[in-house]
Amino acid sequence: MEVESRYVAVRHHVEGLPSEDDFEVKAARVRWWPESGEVLVRNLYLSVDPYQLNRMKRRSASHLAVDGIVPGERIDAYGAGEVVASACEEYKEGDVVTGVLGWEDYTLFRPSPGVLMSKLAASDDLPLSHHLSALGTSGMTAYAGLYEVGRPEAGEKVFVSAASGSVGSLVGQFAKLAGCYVVGCAGTNAKVDLLKNKLGFDDAFNYKDEPDMKSALKRYFPDGIDIYFDNVGGETLEAALANMNTYGRVALCGVISEYTDAGHRAVPDLLEVIYKRITIRGFFAWDFLTRFAEFTGVISDWIRQGKVQVIEDISDGLESVPSAFTALFSGDNIGKKMVKLA
Amino acid sequence: MEVESRYVAVRHHVEGLPSEDDFEVKAARVRWWPESGEVLVRNLYLSVDPYQLNRMKRRSASHLAVDGIVPGERIDAYGAGEVVASACEEYKEGDVVTGVLGWEDYTLFRPSPGVLMSKLAASDDLPLSHHLSALGTSGMTAYAGLYEVGRPEAGEKVFVSAASGSVGSLVGQFAKLAGCYVVGCAGTNAKVDLLKNKLGFDDAFNYKDEPDMKSALKRYFPDGIDIYFDNVGGETLEAALANMNTYGRVALCGVISEYTDAGHRAVPDLLEVIYKRITIRGFFAWDFLTRFAEFTGVISDWIRQGKVQVIEDISDGLESVPSAFTALFSGDNIGKKMVKLA
Repeated sequence: MEVESRYVAVRHHVEGLPSEDDFEVKAARVRWWPESGEVLVRNLYLSVDPYQLNRMKRRSASHLAVDGIVPGERIDAYGAGEVVASACEEYKEGDVVTGVLGWEDYTLFRPSPGVLMSKLAASDDLPLSHHLSALGTSGMTAYAGLYEVGRPEAGEKVFVSAASGSVGSLVGQFAKLAGCYVVGCAGTNAKVDLLKNKLGFDDAFNYKDEPDMKSALKRYFPDGIDIYFDNVGGETLEAALANMNTYGRVALCGVISEYTDAGHRAVPDLLEVIYKRITIRGFFAWDFLTRFAEFTGVISDWIRQGKVQVIEDISDGLESVPSAFTALFSGDNIGKKMVKLA
Repeated sequence: MEVESRYVAVRHHVEGLPSEDDFEVKAARVRWWPESGEVLVRNLYLSVDPYQLNRMKRRSASHLAVDGIVPGERIDAYGAGEVVASACEEYKEGDVVTGVLGWEDYTLFRPSPGVLMSKLAASDDLPLSHHLSALGTSGMTAYAGLYEVGRPEAGEKVFVSAASGSVGSLVGQFAKLAGCYVVGCAGTNAKVDLLKNKLGFDDAFNYKDEPDMKSALKRYFPDGIDIYFDNVGGETLEAALANMNTYGRVALCGVISEYTDAGHRAVPDLLEVIYKRITIRGFFAWDFLTRFAEFTGVISDWIRQGKVQVIEDISDGLESVPSAFTALFSGDNIGKKMVKLA
């Protein structure tokens, strides 16, 4: 079987703020045959994630953990799709899978323990898109980062940056369910409104209105911060450390302010880190892979019970991948950004 | 009973590199009487520690954890002394105690759960000075920092900065006992020689001979660093992070390069911290106070078995406290710096 497929590639390594011109949609033919041992998937939803930008750089610490992206070549990405042909018993035509697919119409994969792919239960009652957001890597990142890295106790004070984003919007809700006091920051008043009035944050503010982040955090956290879930790095991290309590924890999830500008870096006051005995820990959702089923089980129940709102921002068509991706860095999107294929 | 006592004070807050002129020796009379409930101790050994410099600043994150030092007033400090008069049953004349005393000839204390003071067993067979070094806060810091924060596994690679200092010299030896590969850096060739030829470090180097610390660490750790025991901060921390392995741990004990120059700060690459899932944790020996007896028991056995060498640098007389203290910042001393009173 051979299908016409298109894929999104970068034209060249991307070093600063990405623009749509950095991308191109290329045509390809994908060939599957019964003896290949492979599974052919027609992609239905594709995830766009800020960390992909690091993979597009010529050199980046990210290449230690995930392969760099090669200009002109296909780009793997988390997604959901439907099996259209299978050369192995575990997968049948019509099965819906989620896992590492690609920014393309069709993806071929060969099942192996190293390949992250799972088959949806026929009984699954939640929208498929949720498997890219609250039940996908965003949900896992929020869950593992808050509970395993942050380790909240009821009554603790939690600060979340990029709080209306795919991960932050879930972290804040999860922290409320843990009995914490939660404040988030975001970059527009509409986002702040969402956090306060729909997602149940105790408070939220627009960081663009706060020229002095240290004083802002002092106002929002008169009793200090116990856990900072960091998605942005830079001055926000410095300010959070300055307002942190003894034994505070920083779950270092992303430093988006440093992705687009390598010269922009946080200069933490290490005396604060020592004297307040702060722990700063970088983490990946994938370090907790063996516990995905446990985590998604809990999150699914919360969604069904109405305890967690899932915010998604869905673009249409493979050709919208470049604009969806670049929007992540202009502050335009709210919640989990993804692309739905026709 | 009233005794003539002298104490060392700072003349004013100390903001940069300390000099002997910042200090003065002042006369006082200390009065004890049977109804006071207090214990009068004649001090025998006094500890001088770099962190005291932060306490001498007008403003410092250290004041969150330990009281700031007031110009002209006595300065509390770890030490060992002999009880000369006691108004409580637990302590008798002639008992030898170790704990928080002061830079002074005589110290009065009132026993309470909040006062760190312990009585030496009559059977104690190790030199009293060791209770300020390997069996005092230096030993506790090294033990807790390496084992509880660093959590070494046999075969892991450990880097220690300020490796010939009071804490570093023990960390390296403890890490060897844990089956690790250990490299230390120090600031003179004599110190490097000590590390390699007396303390059993696998390798050591003079950081002053290495203009590019990142490349130096790449040479000394071709397989990367798993644990960095940081006593200095600054560029050394940046270089260690750049050479660290996945799941690496930084035990942040001190940032001596930043104590004397608040403008001098490490600018860690947080992308390294995320993608290598590094944990950076500030700690105090005192956070592990409840386990001091356990730790000192282990270290005492190691000393008796000749497995750990205790390096001490002892000055004589209370009037040598200022020069002993300032020497900590000029790189002159080797091992645990302390002052023996007449």
